[in-house]
Amino acid sequence: MAEAASELLLMVPLPSFYRLYYLYNHWIMRTATYFFIFLNLSLAVFEEPAVYPLPFLATSLVEVLCLLVFFGRLTHFAKITPRNVFWKDTKNICIMVAILLSLTDLAIYGALRIYNIKSIRWSRIARPIFLINFAESRQIRRAFRSIRNTLPEITYVFLLFMFSLLMFSLMALKLFGERNLQTAEGLPYFRNYLEIVFDLYVLVTTANSPDVMMPAFDFSSWYALFFIAFVIVNTYIFMSLFLAVVYNNYKKHLKNEIRKLAYMKHRKMIEAFNLLKEEEGAQPVVREARWKQLVKLVAPDISNSHRELLLRISDDEQKGFIDKKSFVQLADLLNIQVITLKIRSHPLGQWMPRVYKSAVSQFLRSMVRHRGFVWTYDAIILINAIFIALDEETPYISYAEWVFLALYIIEILLKVYTYEPRVFFGKNQFWNWFDTLIIFAALTATILNTTLRSTTKYNSQQILDIVFILRVLRLIRIVDSIQRFRVIMNTLINIVPTMLTFGGLTLVVYCIFAIIGMELFHGKIQFFPVNSNAPYALECGNPALKDSLFARGKYCKNNFNNFASSFIVLMELTVVNQWHDILCGGRPAKLYFIAFHIVMVIIIVNIFVSFILEAFFVEYSLEKTPLKGSDEQLLDNMESAEHDLEGEVGTKTQPRGLVFKIASKRYRTVDALLQRMFEAEIPPEDEGPSFEEILNLSPTAAGPSHLTSERAV
Amino acid sequence: MAEAASELLLMVPLPSFYRLYYLYNHWIMRTATYFFIFLNLSLAVFEEPAVYPLPFLATSLVEVLCLLVFFGRLTHFAKITPRNVFWKDTKNICIMVAILLSLTDLAIYGALRIYNIKSIRWSRIARPIFLINFAESRQIRRAFRSIRNTLPEITYVFLLFMFSLLMFSLMALKLFGERNLQTAEGLPYFRNYLEIVFDLYVLVTTANSPDVMMPAFDFSSWYALFFIAFVIVNTYIFMSLFLAVVYNNYKKHLKNEIRKLAYMKHRKMIEAFNLLKEEEGAQPVVREARWKQLVKLVAPDISNSHRELLLRISDDEQKGFIDKKSFVQLADLLNIQVITLKIRSHPLGQWMPRVYKSAVSQFLRSMVRHRGFVWTYDAIILINAIFIALDEETPYISYAEWVFLALYIIEILLKVYTYEPRVFFGKNQFWNWFDTLIIFAALTATILNTTLRSTTKYNSQQILDIVFILRVLRLIRIVDSIQRFRVIMNTLINIVPTMLTFGGLTLVVYCIFAIIGMELFHGKIQFFPVNSNAPYALECGNPALKDSLFARGKYCKNNFNNFASSFIVLMELTVVNQWHDILCGGRPAKLYFIAFHIVMVIIIVNIFVSFILEAFFVEYSLEKTPLKGSDEQLLDNMESAEHDLEGEVGTKTQPRGLVFKIASKRYRTVDALLQRMFEAEIPPEDEGPSFEEILNLSPTAAGPSHLTSERAV
Repeated sequence: MAEAASELLLMVPLPSFYRLYYLYNHWIMRTATYFFIFLNLSLAVFEEPAVYPLPFLATSLVEVLCLLVFFGRLTHFAKITPRNVFWKDTKNICIMVAILLSLTDLAIYGALRIYNIKSIRWSRIARPIFLINFAESRQIRRAFRSIRNTLPEITYVFLLFMFSLLMFSLMALKLFGERNLQTAEGLPYFRNYLEIVFDLYVLVTTANSPDVMMPAFDFSSWYALFFIAFVIVNTYIFMSLFLAVVYNNYKKHLKNEIRKLAYMKHRKMIEAFNLLKEEEGAQPVVREARWKQLVKLVAPDISNSHRELLLRISDDEQKGFIDKKSFVQLADLLNIQVITLKIRSHPLGQWMPRVYKSAVSQFLRSMVRHRGFVWTYDAIILINAIFIALDEETPYISYAEWVFLALYIIEILLKVYTYEPRVFFGKNQFWNWFDTLIIFAALTATILNTTLRSTTKYNSQQILDIVFILRVLRLIRIVDSIQRFRVIMNTLINIVPTMLTFGGLTLVVYCIFAIIGMELFHGKIQFFPVNSNAPYALECGNPALKDSLFARGKYCKNNFNNFASSFIVLMELTVVNQWHDILCGGRPAKLYFIAFHIVMVIIIVNIFVSFILEAFFVEYSLEKTPLKGSDEQLLDNMESAEHDLEGEVGTKTQPRGLVFKIASKRYRTVDALLQRMFEAEIPPEDEGPSFEEILNLSPTAAGPSHLTSERAV
Repeated sequence: MAEAASELLLMVPLPSFYRLYYLYNHWIMRTATYFFIFLNLSLAVFEEPAVYPLPFLATSLVEVLCLLVFFGRLTHFAKITPRNVFWKDTKNICIMVAILLSLTDLAIYGALRIYNIKSIRWSRIARPIFLINFAESRQIRRAFRSIRNTLPEITYVFLLFMFSLLMFSLMALKLFGERNLQTAEGLPYFRNYLEIVFDLYVLVTTANSPDVMMPAFDFSSWYALFFIAFVIVNTYIFMSLFLAVVYNNYKKHLKNEIRKLAYMKHRKMIEAFNLLKEEEGAQPVVREARWKQLVKLVAPDISNSHRELLLRISDDEQKGFIDKKSFVQLADLLNIQVITLKIRSHPLGQWMPRVYKSAVSQFLRSMVRHRGFVWTYDAIILINAIFIALDEETPYISYAEWVFLALYIIEILLKVYTYEPRVFFGKNQFWNWFDTLIIFAALTATILNTTLRSTTKYNSQQILDIVFILRVLRLIRIVDSIQRFRVIMNTLINIVPTMLTFGGLTLVVYCIFAIIGMELFHGKIQFFPVNSNAPYALECGNPALKDSLFARGKYCKNNFNNFASSFIVLMELTVVNQWHDILCGGRPAKLYFIAFHIVMVIIIVNIFVSFILEAFFVEYSLEKTPLKGSDEQLLDNMESAEHDLEGEVGTKTQPRGLVFKIASKRYRTVDALLQRMFEAEIPPEDEGPSFEEILNLSPTAAGPSHLTSERAV
């Protein structure tokens, strides 16, 4: 929002232009774009090899539709962007090239198909480009940029790691190659150099430990030392080194990106100020009327009283104008979530005051507010857990389920009766929402199941499964009652947005690898249900797999035959265990899996761990130290202004006073926190570096010297 | 050394006391203590169940000897420590209790043995106490303290993790328990709640992925979502959370410990100053004569010229006395490694100057100094690598080995000829030492092997193995030629001391678990050589293992039958893979392995990763920013003083001038760096907190406010 605001401030004010701009940023347009991006990605489910096959004509029509939408969105964007900015931006070029390539590929494939020539839909790999490059996915793009910047350093560590691997393999060849040892499967052990390299690479991921060691270990106990040294050097030291490099670079580049953003925003706000300023005495200022006009334009959805509040903060001495320093803060002020709270009594208290304020009702409410109420329900949850673990078939127990459901519903009703419903279902009341949704979903599902059973005499397995899951999820509530756990849970909940970025990253990598994997390995392995009499059913339809660990482990369903199962195989490969068994193909399979391991496990999982480490550290440091500097001040200003306003708008005794509440003092994401940190250190009179300088800011460049040196250690 | 110095400075000067003190800190005494500690630990190799069995009488005599040595060492320590300090220190009490317990246990076991009653030597678990609690193992003790301090926070995360595990298990029981599914081995799948918990715990370590998923996945593809959710929540998020908590606490407590140390040193130096001070005008000072006496006492091994240098730095205006500020720095000055470099020409240049300075010799030397020389040898190493990979049997290739050996020896000789030998083999010339040792060891082993072969016609396998390893190790040199790799390698070499602490930690945990493991599982599994006809040879001598994965994987040698193989099994368990197969025992085995996993993998491996991360970050920040503050100044002082001295002692043209060189500007360990950081922030006139306060310093306590707040983010 602040981004949009500061961007907008630079534009020449033309009404039609505004309309286009708002339209582009309207939530419906954004959602639609996302919808078509995911539609385009999910085409892989319906295209050959398909989970749910659709005719080629249908999928290709949908694809053309998606591409048209993307093209339209891009044109729209071009209309609201200065020409030179638009054509300088690589992401726009990327999208155009991707659209062109996809159309060409589609045309060629379609034409060849008419003549019954089989070809490859290679442009499908380009589809995640749309997810990365549309302006809405800033976070994912930033993560990718951060990976690209980390690559050089990772490469050096990786080369050193490969060198160590090759050296150990050479030693292994010399030590074990001429011993005529055999593996547990009776195969020759450590004879061929390339196979040794591969086996030891697998050992780095620990997937074939201790099998790979056993033949040598059986021969002589001393050889265990070789493998211990190998594991210490490669698994522990090098893998930690990868994490260290990724984490270090991730942090460095994240900070740099955010510093750029902070500078950029600051600079844009100053330029806007310069456009709007008038002279008031010797001081350049923006007058109140113009300021209000601007805010109305930038943030049309906020209420009048909210705007009044902002004005009171920006012009705290009520001089009728806003100076440069306060003006620059506007973007931040707009960013602070303000909930317009209307303090009012409980609706029941208004509808039937006598009943609601009677002694019984008051006793009830004080009971609900009492600690014992929470404890009672914790006890009920524990008893419920025991009942869930017990057998379902006993009728007595399935009746108990109804009792528990009723108890939970009563709890929610009592709470809503006691607290104001709009407070209870406030935006930040995560647990209340969680509880209510779980309980009502369980109620609906249970009723549905009972009706089904009474009519068809059978349980619907899908509904029963959902009921089971909901029932167990209910138990999570107990965590919320214990303070220490709540802190950890809140940390986890707070890092969810950051994890979604990671989810996008993973999705992109998975999509690309799944499409490549399907082209390479499609149909090599077949899955047959247990009682199938198909030939080679036990060997997954592939005679070459006879007696392999793959067939013995009954892994037949781990194949690349469609998009969904490709995803699951890739998930298994991310977890790493047994991946040397899951592959079991020839050389292309090995190369494919090693490439996936490097991209996914070494880079992306480490970035994910870095995410979590950083998020946890930031949360932890927030817990200890309150917000400081200009930030605290900002909030203080806001709060004092808030009390003033309350005094004005509402009278003391009136229960319908208007109160603003700052939604959360915590910054929800690591990014937001870092951004504030950097902003706090830019002096308001400083114009900051020029646009060119900002864009070329390197992570090691000095910046304001006190800023980098402080954070260096 | 500085520790010792500042401790000593507080003592009352009595000659006999000094002798005792020096004796206690003499390196022979320290080494002897370590020797007996490791002798005591290694007794487990010879005691039943033994790798090399020795009679009970022998091992118990050695144990008594060790205990006597420990007791002697402790008495010695008591003599040089004030009584109240000695008895307040829990580690002394610990050692005494451990000695007493061991003796009692030994007596009871011996007595019962005479009557042929089998009992357990339970006091063997107490042996690592000596390793932890002798004053020499400060680092290990600090690491343990840091673990103890981390425990509360870990416990909370662990409880939450267990809660999540139990919830998922409950869901799994409800979802899969009544499906009558079977595992790949035909066993019932997910029927019993406790077994599900265990299976899912194994899945957290990824050891049974994807086997544990396959039956449910085969039944319905949707069930894969359950396992994916499980892995994301428990393996990725919770395990990262453990790392975050361990890392955060580790850093916090490490900093606190080091802050304590810095304060302590500072305070002791001030007390020493107050003992020795005289008045000079209004200023309290220490006179030169007394200062020299003190330095002689504290550091008797340093040369006169080194002492002169220190005096010049402390008394830089040559006033004949040292003020408080300079005096306090003494401990740090003594800590800076100073190499007394004697610049002199090559010894050959002195012995036969005509030959050494002839045109041929000069050409040779300039050739060796040329870059091409390094490149030539890099090429030779690469060719050598290819030769090593080729088959050994061809006589042509085994002759080539001699050629390479000769080439390497010529290289070393040429370098020694060109550079001064004492420079070439300087203390910090790691790679020169490495090269020379590897080459000469290879030469010796190769000659030995050839003589053996020419006399006995057979290769000695052990010697050949060593030759192979040495040959391959030689190739590592190529890494040193590439600048980027050298930086990473140096980082790795620099963190070796820190890793040794971790090694000590691991040793303690392994010892305890190995001893428990041997008592519990000794003899349950036997290993037979390949061609044995013993009954149940294929089932590891245990009919219960028939058809188990354990026997099929030929894991028989993974047993707890002696100390050495227990260690290897524990190593395999640390790596985590297949551990559910390696166990295969009943409930005690499962509990044993889960306990080991929690202690070793969740806590210690995470601490190890934290070590490496922190070390890498510190190295990285050092690389970017030079040392700053008082530190840089100290070194600058030192360097300027050094040039002065050089000018005085040697004349300009004289080749035998005396030059001091500061061994390394880098702090070798993270500890040392942190210590300097904190010291730099204590103002010299500040007396710091009192001893009592220092000892009770909590990690969250304020300290000097600017100190903690700066580092908080």
